[in-house]
Amino acid sequence: MYGRYTQELGVYAKEEAARLREEGGRRRSVTERSRSLELLEYDKGRCAKCRRSGYPYTQAPPRDFLSVCTLRCQKFLISRVGEDWIFLILLGLLMALVSWVVDFAIAICLQAQKWMYGGLESNVFLQYLAWVTYPVVLITFSAGFTQILAPQAVGSGIPEMKTILRGVVLKEYLTFKTFVAKVIGLTCALGSGMPLGKEGPFVHIASLCAALLSKFMSLFGGIYENESRNIEMLAAACAVGVGCCFAAPIGGVLFSIEVTSTFFAVRNYWRGFFAATFSAFIFRVLAVWNKDEETITALFKTRFRLDFPFDLQELPAFAVIGIASGFGGALFVYLNRLIVQFIRKQKTINKFLMKKRLLYPALVTLLVSTLTFPPGFGQFMAGKLTQKESLVTLLDNRTWAKQGIAEGFDYIGNSQAWNHPQVNVFVTLVLFIVMKFWMSALATTIPVPCGAFMPVFVIGAAFGRLVGESMAAWFPDGIHSDGTIYPIVPGGYAVVGAAALSGAVTHTVSTAVIVFELTGQISHILPVMIAVILANAVAQSLQPSLYDSIIRIKKLPYLPELGWGHHEKYNIRVEDIMIRDVTYITLNCCYRDLHDVLLAGHLKTLALLESSESMILLGSIERAQLQALLSLQLGRPRRLEYLRDRATAEKKRLSMVSHPGSEDGSQRVNQEVRFQISTEESTFSPTPTPSMKPLKPALKRPSVVDRPTGIPIPTSPQDHSSSTLKNLFCVNPETEGLEDDFDVDDDMTIREIAEWEENQLDEQVNFDNCKIDPAPFQLVERTSLHKTHTIFSLLGLDHAYVTSIGRLIGVVSLKELRKAIEGSVAVKGVKVRPPLSSFRDSGTSGTSSSNSENEATELHKLWDRHKSMSLPREHLASDSDEKSQ
Amino acid sequence: MYGRYTQELGVYAKEEAARLREEGGRRRSVTERSRSLELLEYDKGRCAKCRRSGYPYTQAPPRDFLSVCTLRCQKFLISRVGEDWIFLILLGLLMALVSWVVDFAIAICLQAQKWMYGGLESNVFLQYLAWVTYPVVLITFSAGFTQILAPQAVGSGIPEMKTILRGVVLKEYLTFKTFVAKVIGLTCALGSGMPLGKEGPFVHIASLCAALLSKFMSLFGGIYENESRNIEMLAAACAVGVGCCFAAPIGGVLFSIEVTSTFFAVRNYWRGFFAATFSAFIFRVLAVWNKDEETITALFKTRFRLDFPFDLQELPAFAVIGIASGFGGALFVYLNRLIVQFIRKQKTINKFLMKKRLLYPALVTLLVSTLTFPPGFGQFMAGKLTQKESLVTLLDNRTWAKQGIAEGFDYIGNSQAWNHPQVNVFVTLVLFIVMKFWMSALATTIPVPCGAFMPVFVIGAAFGRLVGESMAAWFPDGIHSDGTIYPIVPGGYAVVGAAALSGAVTHTVSTAVIVFELTGQISHILPVMIAVILANAVAQSLQPSLYDSIIRIKKLPYLPELGWGHHEKYNIRVEDIMIRDVTYITLNCCYRDLHDVLLAGHLKTLALLESSESMILLGSIERAQLQALLSLQLGRPRRLEYLRDRATAEKKRLSMVSHPGSEDGSQRVNQEVRFQISTEESTFSPTPTPSMKPLKPALKRPSVVDRPTGIPIPTSPQDHSSSTLKNLFCVNPETEGLEDDFDVDDDMTIREIAEWEENQLDEQVNFDNCKIDPAPFQLVERTSLHKTHTIFSLLGLDHAYVTSIGRLIGVVSLKELRKAIEGSVAVKGVKVRPPLSSFRDSGTSGTSSSNSENEATELHKLWDRHKSMSLPREHLASDSDEKSQ
Repeated sequence: MYGRYTQELGVYAKEEAARLREEGGRRRSVTERSRSLELLEYDKGRCAKCRRSGYPYTQAPPRDFLSVCTLRCQKFLISRVGEDWIFLILLGLLMALVSWVVDFAIAICLQAQKWMYGGLESNVFLQYLAWVTYPVVLITFSAGFTQILAPQAVGSGIPEMKTILRGVVLKEYLTFKTFVAKVIGLTCALGSGMPLGKEGPFVHIASLCAALLSKFMSLFGGIYENESRNIEMLAAACAVGVGCCFAAPIGGVLFSIEVTSTFFAVRNYWRGFFAATFSAFIFRVLAVWNKDEETITALFKTRFRLDFPFDLQELPAFAVIGIASGFGGALFVYLNRLIVQFIRKQKTINKFLMKKRLLYPALVTLLVSTLTFPPGFGQFMAGKLTQKESLVTLLDNRTWAKQGIAEGFDYIGNSQAWNHPQVNVFVTLVLFIVMKFWMSALATTIPVPCGAFMPVFVIGAAFGRLVGESMAAWFPDGIHSDGTIYPIVPGGYAVVGAAALSGAVTHTVSTAVIVFELTGQISHILPVMIAVILANAVAQSLQPSLYDSIIRIKKLPYLPELGWGHHEKYNIRVEDIMIRDVTYITLNCCYRDLHDVLLAGHLKTLALLESSESMILLGSIERAQLQALLSLQLGRPRRLEYLRDRATAEKKRLSMVSHPGSEDGSQRVNQEVRFQISTEESTFSPTPTPSMKPLKPALKRPSVVDRPTGIPIPTSPQDHSSSTLKNLFCVNPETEGLEDDFDVDDDMTIREIAEWEENQLDEQVNFDNCKIDPAPFQLVERTSLHKTHTIFSLLGLDHAYVTSIGRLIGVVSLKELRKAIEGSVAVKGVKVRPPLSSFRDSGTSGTSSSNSENEATELHKLWDRHKSMSLPREHLASDSDEKSQ
Repeated sequence: MYGRYTQELGVYAKEEAARLREEGGRRRSVTERSRSLELLEYDKGRCAKCRRSGYPYTQAPPRDFLSVCTLRCQKFLISRVGEDWIFLILLGLLMALVSWVVDFAIAICLQAQKWMYGGLESNVFLQYLAWVTYPVVLITFSAGFTQILAPQAVGSGIPEMKTILRGVVLKEYLTFKTFVAKVIGLTCALGSGMPLGKEGPFVHIASLCAALLSKFMSLFGGIYENESRNIEMLAAACAVGVGCCFAAPIGGVLFSIEVTSTFFAVRNYWRGFFAATFSAFIFRVLAVWNKDEETITALFKTRFRLDFPFDLQELPAFAVIGIASGFGGALFVYLNRLIVQFIRKQKTINKFLMKKRLLYPALVTLLVSTLTFPPGFGQFMAGKLTQKESLVTLLDNRTWAKQGIAEGFDYIGNSQAWNHPQVNVFVTLVLFIVMKFWMSALATTIPVPCGAFMPVFVIGAAFGRLVGESMAAWFPDGIHSDGTIYPIVPGGYAVVGAAALSGAVTHTVSTAVIVFELTGQISHILPVMIAVILANAVAQSLQPSLYDSIIRIKKLPYLPELGWGHHEKYNIRVEDIMIRDVTYITLNCCYRDLHDVLLAGHLKTLALLESSESMILLGSIERAQLQALLSLQLGRPRRLEYLRDRATAEKKRLSMVSHPGSEDGSQRVNQEVRFQISTEESTFSPTPTPSMKPLKPALKRPSVVDRPTGIPIPTSPQDHSSSTLKNLFCVNPETEGLEDDFDVDDDMTIREIAEWEENQLDEQVNFDNCKIDPAPFQLVERTSLHKTHTIFSLLGLDHAYVTSIGRLIGVVSLKELRKAIEGSVAVKGVKVRPPLSSFRDSGTSGTSSSNSENEATELHKLWDRHKSMSLPREHLASDSDEKSQ
């Protein structure tokens, strides 16, 4: 089930396949086509060095086996080990350059807008037109460009990376096209000045760089094809992405771990640190060389006082920021999802928007930029400032509000935007927060490459600043009681708020570290940590993280987190959730069975049993392998061989008899007939004989390979999805090359071919040259759901066979697991229950055991339901046990 | 194999068991005793709520099953979920208090020494005596106290925690005694002023707190008995330990992850952060309340300038610090190990020191304190300063060396110690580094609770300061070329050096974060990161980390890291390393087989097969279960029942016949005979009949249960270890209660009992009431070593069965795996090859593939050896493959 897509992805795959099928009419090379399609799936079973397929072993090695075919290739690998460092350095360098170029381009775009806006100061209408048109054009271009070049580049990229790092291969997410689309789309989107972020896209871009670099370096041979290594490198790339986006190597590593991993291998830790540090270093060095900075310092350097950063008595205020940010973060995620779902559900809107794909981005941009127009409503919400400028001003270490008798703060430079002659700075801040909040939630739904981290970060900073200014106004002389006056620093509150809100939205604690690296000051460590943890506790008990929410919206394959509060999970066993009706093949089956099984299901791997009586599991075979077996059996070479044999026999016969008319058969088709498995909605009647079909397309076109088969599809209950387009044209490449060696004329009629195929299908399958995975993951039926979840997420499995004393009794895939986890949670009326959910439980149920009767009865119901649903267990000693108490 | 100890631990377990056995003579309650011994092992199969043993299921649930027996208990649990938070808060609070108290006590001890030393200024000899005696007394007391109360408290504690978190249960490491010994021992050891650290011990103390708190809270019932939960809590505790040692929550979490985990579950991340933040907060708040500080700030606050922390051109100097620290760190680990091994090997020294256990610490302390005596040699190496004072002065932001024409720095306060009238400050620093280096390596081998982090940290800071001062002397006006004079800040170099050297010794990157939190400044982030990464790269390619080194010295069970440079690992399969001669029991075996198997091996769990013909693996049974089965079969209740039956039969017979003499048999033993399995070196002759033995002890004592059995031990080849002392007295507690119900006189003679037992042994085993784990971990024989390693470290396994199509063909345990990894590495002549080892490979072999012939031939040898060693494979297609090339 690797490389299974749903909805959007599925659609893409289908289109791609259709395109390729059409092209196939023109191109003859089957291998080439099958290779293009192979890109969609897991590229396994090919030597990393010499690219030959086929292993030294007849049976396939386990999944993480380093794919090299011979010793010569292997020795080659060992000498290449040092390239790991080179790879990381190159990756860091590349990302730093990309990051710097993107930043530079964005800065120029933003300057251009300012220049236009400034130049037209005489006419407000023209000014408005310029202010609005510029972002609309940029966003529309970005959306259009991305849509045309690579729709996969849309959005953040972190959800997809999380899915990829989980082991699911979404190969088209890591192509050069996507890279170009993402970089250019992101530059335009951010250049428009909309409240969009670049963090998520940077993670994606870094992963793209890693993937492309990997591919590039594998041109020189090497180990760059090993799957587990690729995953390690992608994990490092994610760290690099965050790291050089904020020039925050440590925070980048931690953030990427928190956001993308479930279980993290500590041995990969240094990779991320090394690459992220290197790229952050280069990124900042470029700034120094470009004379932007004098030396390497933080991106948003703050200058809070060191000796007395905050008073102990200010901590409650920081805690309030944390809790409020938690609610705010959950609200943001909810709002974001609501907007997407609303647009999807409203069919009339949806249809309209689907037709004019660029209208939605344009409309949203128009709305947002109209509201931020500085001479209009924008004057009340510092609309003039770009995101970066707002952040710099918010983190300023001076106090804005008037303090007691003392004179107010001189608003100079960008800070002026916050000061409105008629309106209090508090009103400006509140308006800024409220407006930016929904604007950001709305803007991040635009189909352009964009993230939500930075907008949320800015909103958080504004909220913190608001609280800080209030505190400063409330205690003009500071809270400290010991005589010395230490005025309150609202900038510190802004730092805390930024970390807390972004932490709440992304469900991460490492935003705290990012904030320190971003500001270059760590003096507020305790307030920041307290606020971030509180924000996380609140947000996690209310909503999934933004990235998980997007994963669900996009219907990417995922495994929900198992909140450890769910003790009922310990009572669900694999036997309760597994699929009992497993499609399998047996060792002594014939090709017809193989063919039927391939048509019946769309599973990526199939179980191989000893026999249907014993049901003993021998291993699993990939679908492609079986298809190769089938094509080999029914392919042209085999038929030519058959013809040759027949010819030899004929000749022998003829050597005895005299020469009769040499040609027989009415219709000559100089082609092979190949079986193709297709699950497109078949309009054929389910008649069992392929020879009954007229095979018209075959006659029309010289190439037969993409002719729809005459084989009708047996309607199996499981088989209503249309995702088996991959693996269609699986051809054994080795047999292709042999074609020229035959010197026999292929002079069989279609009827003859059909007959011959029928005979071929009745032969018993020879698995000798087939790659069998002898170690598919097995569970026992009594394994608890909890353990199953752990094993699945640890080992990145997507399915496991359930065996009982060696006998196959079922299969569990990610889907069943997900259903089981979410299903049983749904009973309790909660959608998602992440790790911190226990926080809420404690609030409602208290700690004493006596007053939880209500919950107990609920649980009782659940338990009963579970019991009635599950199969009867042999030993219900628990009942007798209870009685005996 | 859980709870298997080697050497020291084994000795302790043996002594404990012997003590308990002796006590058993006095105490009658068998249950009580068996429970004491149970403490030594894995407490499984007991309801977490009501403490009853036995599950509702006849078969045992999988390992992570939450042990509650009934629904009522379960509902109880759910209401207790919120206690997780309470637990973490309590843990944080407790640790902060402990940490503060320990710090306070240490400070008082150090002050006392200074006061003594200061008061005797008139007489140098008396002064020397005071200076030397004080630490000798303290260290000797600490060593003696720890030795007597809990020898487990000796040393750092991090290696043990790493082992425990890996899944190995070392229960006596987490007792209250150990806690007391560790806290008091640590206070005395650090109070002596020796170059010892408190970080490792703090990790241990925090874990102890967590374990004890867990136990305490389980008094009120709850989930505190769940094993996986305990491990999660211990991981959090480690973070708390580091966190409140340095008031560095983030660094603490990261450091503890790096040091103790192989695979880290991100879902546990917040736990560590929460607890560490809370404890760091309380720890610092205590300081504020105690008026030590005005507000919460960093422990070793620095005041480097923010605007221009360092110049780009200084980076090479930082890199040099990193590389040199890498070599230094490796040297430190090597030196430390060398000293331990030297003392162990030198038999005469060893004997002498073993006899007078306190002599070694006293001698070492004497040597160290003599050399640091301030009026003596100490004046050249700032001997007057405590560790903390040295660190504060080293991190000072002023420059010590004279700069050009400008006046030298005024040495005030503690800094004065660095300034010697005759000697340059550079000489002082060099002497300090060299002397402290070997002193620290020596001092950390003293058997007191102590760590090495802090001494190494200080040495690193001194080294950094040295480089910084040299740079400052070299470039008096700074390096910056743009006119502005930014003098070099040697304090920044000290920060970099401290992070780099401690990172090199512990093989961690997170020392960088610790340093930021410790100094409260993050401005040197890039130099620190660069230096730490370089130091790690160098140190990891030369030596294992200090903790891994100690693990190896202490012979704790561990799994070596699989450096990913080892591509030959992919070619070793489980079948090459597994033990083929598995001891197993079958479903239809009789009690005699059970008995023989129990005597033959010491495995914690045994495989249960269908039959010895089919070899189909049904599950695994714990040894204790089998012992319980055996005792039940041969126990007194069963015999009494037999007697009653016989009496009834007799009565029936008597009702027909008249009354003859009622008593028969010569010797009456009113006791039961119970089988006990003991592997102590048996002096009995191996005669097979138990009745031949006179059973003298049974006659002497009324209680028979701890009488050595008459059953001689068959000498099996596997059974020469003496570690089966646990599980000896395994008694089924339920049968104990039944004893009173019987009203039959136990009037069997020993001979009769023996006969009866013999008969009993021939009965077939009834596994109905036995807890069978139906899902023991299975591998297939072709699983690669690499995959096996990953699975073992991911799932914390200690053994896995190897099956082929359901049939048991072997077993792999941690030992075999370790041997295989280290064995094959030893071929290449390298002892340890951690993740970064690829760094070195790249240096020696280069990146081009042509000039690696030498390595290739070596690999060839390995390959050939491997082939000849392994079993003949069926498909050696690789050969033909190679030929066909």
